[in-house]
Amino acid sequence: MSQKQSLNVVVIGASGTIGKLLVQSLQEKGHQVIQVSRSSGDYQADIRDKQSLEALFEKIGSVDAVANAAGEVVAGPFTSLTDDQYALSFRSKLMGQINIVRTALPYLADSGSFTLVSGVLTDEPIAGGTIGTAVNGAVEGFVKAAAHELPRGVRINCISPTVLTESVAFHPYFPGFIPVDGWKVARAYERSILGIINGRILHV
Amino acid sequence: MSQKQSLNVVVIGASGTIGKLLVQSLQEKGHQVIQVSRSSGDYQADIRDKQSLEALFEKIGSVDAVANAAGEVVAGPFTSLTDDQYALSFRSKLMGQINIVRTALPYLADSGSFTLVSGVLTDEPIAGGTIGTAVNGAVEGFVKAAAHELPRGVRINCISPTVLTESVAFHPYFPGFIPVDGWKVARAYERSILGIINGRILHV
Ligand SMILES: NC(=O)c1ccc[n+]([C@@H]2O[C@H](COP(=O)([O-])OP(=O)(O)OC[C@H]3O[C@@H](n4cnc5c(N)ncnc54)[C@H](OP(=O)(O)O)[C@@H]3O)[C@@H](O)[C@H]2O)c1
Ligand SMILES: NC(=O)c1ccc[n+]([C@@H]2O[C@H](COP(=O)([O-])OP(=O)(O)OC[C@H]3O[C@@H](n4cnc5c(N)ncnc54)[C@H](OP(=O)(O)O)[C@@H]3O)[C@@H](O)[C@H]2O)c1
Repeated sequence: MSQKQSLNVVVIGASGTIGKLLVQSLQEKGHQVIQVSRSSGDYQADIRDKQSLEALFEKIGSVDAVANAAGEVVAGPFTSLTDDQYALSFRSKLMGQINIVRTALPYLADSGSFTLVSGVLTDEPIAGGTIGTAVNGAVEGFVKAAAHELPRGVRINCISPTVLTESVAFHPYFPGFIPVDGWKVARAYERSILGIINGRILHV
Repeated sequence: MSQKQSLNVVVIGASGTIGKLLVQSLQEKGHQVIQVSRSSGDYQADIRDKQSLEALFEKIGSVDAVANAAGEVVAGPFTSLTDDQYALSFRSKLMGQINIVRTALPYLADSGSFTLVSGVLTDEPIAGGTIGTAVNGAVEGFVKAAAHELPRGVRINCISPTVLTESVAFHPYFPGFIPVDGWKVARAYERSILGIINGRILHV
């Protein structure tokens, strides 16, 4: 990929706090960004629904990179979590991200990249974060393992940010955590998309 | 728990390679072991089915510890894994173990313990092990987070063994890995069940 000056990058979750900053930064560097979310952007898709992802990539066709900044987990005290809250979270941030990779792989250029997202909860539990920590652990495990099995030099990495400066509503749930400015998270995505690394969990 | 000489310990997966060794070791030390699996033991239950777990603990009643050595993940090359193989694995070794904790918690004595199982794949991917690494990462994440939210001093730990000496059929899939004798894995379960540790991943 290093020869190419301008990459075609799909950003899923493009309208979100992280997604917006990533889109802007990639565009400023001259890359073509295809913006996706459920309700806005160039294309709409729901990562919880594999058929919706299949339809998305059929429409988009070949790309150089797929970066994801979407995926939901439900927060709540352990003893009050319901079956549905586990199921929704596994379907969204866990299986949703795995399905992005499974679905987009045939459309990805040789040596192209996937960039998924986990978060600081993987290693630093917070009150009400059991599902978040479990899901992040699974996403990171998936990335570490799939990195060795993806064909044609395709790479995969995971961005694990702490709480963002911009995500003010989350700050009370992260007491003592020092937030990270969102532009640094966008940079970590760029290390994955524009670099050569594979199977890495980038903590920001 | 330290005062009690003999604990009531439920072992799920009691007829398996790990389970059998744990049951034997606990019995030798004078503990009361309640053996569970789908098809043998004192009680039958299927960890993939939450109602089956609910029925199990209604029958068993109060216990001092629940140790799990059951849970399936499907192995296979990344590009050939099916939706059903992901779903089965998440339902068994991931949600199955989470549901053991959710279901048994009201029956567990104060300061009682849960012991779950992950495995070396969490950190050391092998060919065909994508689901295994993802599921183990989730189980370990669950344990690390739930440890801080369980009430009444209830503890939870996770045993992460490398491939067992006794599991000869698995050895070809773990080239260069030095197998661990099963009795050492049983000891790690005992550190969790009989000790004071909480939120720990015990690598054996
Ligand atoms: N913000 C933080 O501090 C932080 C820290 C660590 C990790 N993270 C993780 O980073 C990810 C993004 O966080 P964020 O704060 O940027 O999220 P956000 O501001 O809520 O934005 C989420 C984005 O994803 C889209 N989206 C949500 N669900 C979707 C689905 N099922 N299918 C397709 N698109 C979907 C949203 O648009 P639509 O609603 O239109 O679909 C939006 O574009 C999350 O997984 C979060 O856990 C965030
Ligand atoms: N053996 C190893 O080298 C090794 C290494 C690392 C991690 N592990 C992990 O340790 C766990 C146990 O491994 P193992 O080799 O001891 O397994 P095993 O010999 O195949 O035994 C599995 C045990 O669990 C029971 N079981 C299976 N599915 C069940 C279900 N859905 N509900 C209730 N019981 C169920 C089985 O009995 P029934 O069939 O009658 O239900 C049996 O008692 C697995 O999660 C495995 O991934 C094993």
